[in-house]
Amino acid sequence: METEFIAWLRDRLPQHRSLIVGPGDDAAIIDLGGRRDVVVTTDMLMDGVDFKLGEVDAKPIGRKALAVNLSDLAAMAAEPTAVVISLALPVVGAFALATKLYEGLIPLAEQFDTAIAGGDTNTYDGPLVISVTAFGRLAERGPFLRSGARAGDELLVTGDFGGSILGKHLSFTPRVKEALALRRYDVHAAMDVSDGLSLDLSRLCTASGCGAELNVDRIPIAAAARELSRQRNDGHTPLDHAFSDGEDFELLLAVPPDEAKRLCDEQPLGDVRLTSIGRLVAAPGLWSVDKSGTRTPLAPRGYLH
Amino acid sequence: METEFIAWLRDRLPQHRSLIVGPGDDAAIIDLGGRRDVVVTTDMLMDGVDFKLGEVDAKPIGRKALAVNLSDLAAMAAEPTAVVISLALPVVGAFALATKLYEGLIPLAEQFDTAIAGGDTNTYDGPLVISVTAFGRLAERGPFLRSGARAGDELLVTGDFGGSILGKHLSFTPRVKEALALRRYDVHAAMDVSDGLSLDLSRLCTASGCGAELNVDRIPIAAAARELSRQRNDGHTPLDHAFSDGEDFELLLAVPPDEAKRLCDEQPLGDVRLTSIGRLVAAPGLWSVDKSGTRTPLAPRGYLH
Repeated sequence: METEFIAWLRDRLPQHRSLIVGPGDDAAIIDLGGRRDVVVTTDMLMDGVDFKLGEVDAKPIGRKALAVNLSDLAAMAAEPTAVVISLALPVVGAFALATKLYEGLIPLAEQFDTAIAGGDTNTYDGPLVISVTAFGRLAERGPFLRSGARAGDELLVTGDFGGSILGKHLSFTPRVKEALALRRYDVHAAMDVSDGLSLDLSRLCTASGCGAELNVDRIPIAAAARELSRQRNDGHTPLDHAFSDGEDFELLLAVPPDEAKRLCDEQPLGDVRLTSIGRLVAAPGLWSVDKSGTRTPLAPRGYLH
Repeated sequence: METEFIAWLRDRLPQHRSLIVGPGDDAAIIDLGGRRDVVVTTDMLMDGVDFKLGEVDAKPIGRKALAVNLSDLAAMAAEPTAVVISLALPVVGAFALATKLYEGLIPLAEQFDTAIAGGDTNTYDGPLVISVTAFGRLAERGPFLRSGARAGDELLVTGDFGGSILGKHLSFTPRVKEALALRRYDVHAAMDVSDGLSLDLSRLCTASGCGAELNVDRIPIAAAARELSRQRNDGHTPLDHAFSDGEDFELLLAVPPDEAKRLCDEQPLGDVRLTSIGRLVAAPGLWSVDKSGTRTPLAPRGYLH
């Protein structure tokens, strides 16, 4: 229901002079009294939706609750500063659960030099809910927004896609360092891929008022996507998984062709590979283009909240 | 369990140069790259704990979720700037519930000139959970902290206490304007009273390393406290309710005697009355002092999370 609700809300939320970028992008940018570089994002994870508490240890869940927020800051090319963390814990075993969640997230906060500034820890008669709000700062260049892509831009992605349910959805590294490194380049638009490559690409296209062509043979397919396709054996190909699984937490970038060539040649992100997977086009919609050049409409698929 | 958990956490949270005031006060103060005036607070409300969804309309619940955060900013004498709002909504009726919550909170955000910068709206198989994070700015004077009170300071409160369950817990006005007005005075310490006057006073005393004497005949007792005492007829006096009910969301202030006299004479907060209810003393602990001067130890009571 989130999509419909956001549409409802958009008409009702008061405009405010402090909102430089308001709801609708990966994070908001706030003018905090003359400083226009404050980036804020919030994500809530719930037992039964984002994880299953009986099936996984609580430490990686705590880690994930922080990591998804850092990924949203990365999508704006913001440098993380601090987070606050609120927990609604089931009464039975609450203390042990809270300590495990924090044991999972503290090392990630330290890795990304992010202060844990506060929180609210509660017990109740319900499933575990974790709410994290993260703050960051923009540097001179940036932010990366969803809305800056133009027809003719190439589409680049970090890493590979699909099958994250086999492990990456809990263990991924948010692309914070990579986003900060990419600020030196001419990036027109960016977002993090959390709900599925094709669905999130369609959102970037909508925000930028254009369409996209994907070279399907160039999509970097994760080994986990092949493994999941094999395990499930339900007719979904590894490419299907790469297009729609979600929780890849990679960056999707729109970059002018020359800069895209330079980025793909230089590979400035070390182990994290940049791949060109297609280009932005003027006409709205998504198309896949195969090796022979055949162009087919592509339905965006992914995780709808 | 929150108290024990915070003690556990205190030993494990990494120190961070960005934390000017970290966990333990009403809000945190963050150094966001050279600006040391950013105030952040977060509060989570849960169905069955902070409200009962079947028994009250959702609009005042949405309003309350924002109001408790604004009250925490007021406790630091910070000016609200923006909030983000995350919802975990029960699947059935989620859209209607979300719209009502926002219809309740949007007018309060407008009243306090606070931007709604973003959020995360989700459905799941569980009770309603609302997480709000609020940001504000300190002005030249401030912040008010819990830890600045000294023996000899007078204790002032805004408004009156007790019986908030009869309505005020949903309809209270956060003391934002009052706190901003009080920055012109020499306030040593402040907090908002959310868990009960005696319990929160004991926290202010602990943070400041002193004790307090309360003149019980001076405590401003709300009409609702008298009404609740009458309705329940269980031996709890109106004063008991004023001491321990919680959710009054009034300000508790420690002020030097001369300034306290000036404040009580001038009454600069208009309709919101300032009352002197006692004084800080060097020895730790709480005492009540009656009209005859008899001094009795007072056990802090209130709402423990």
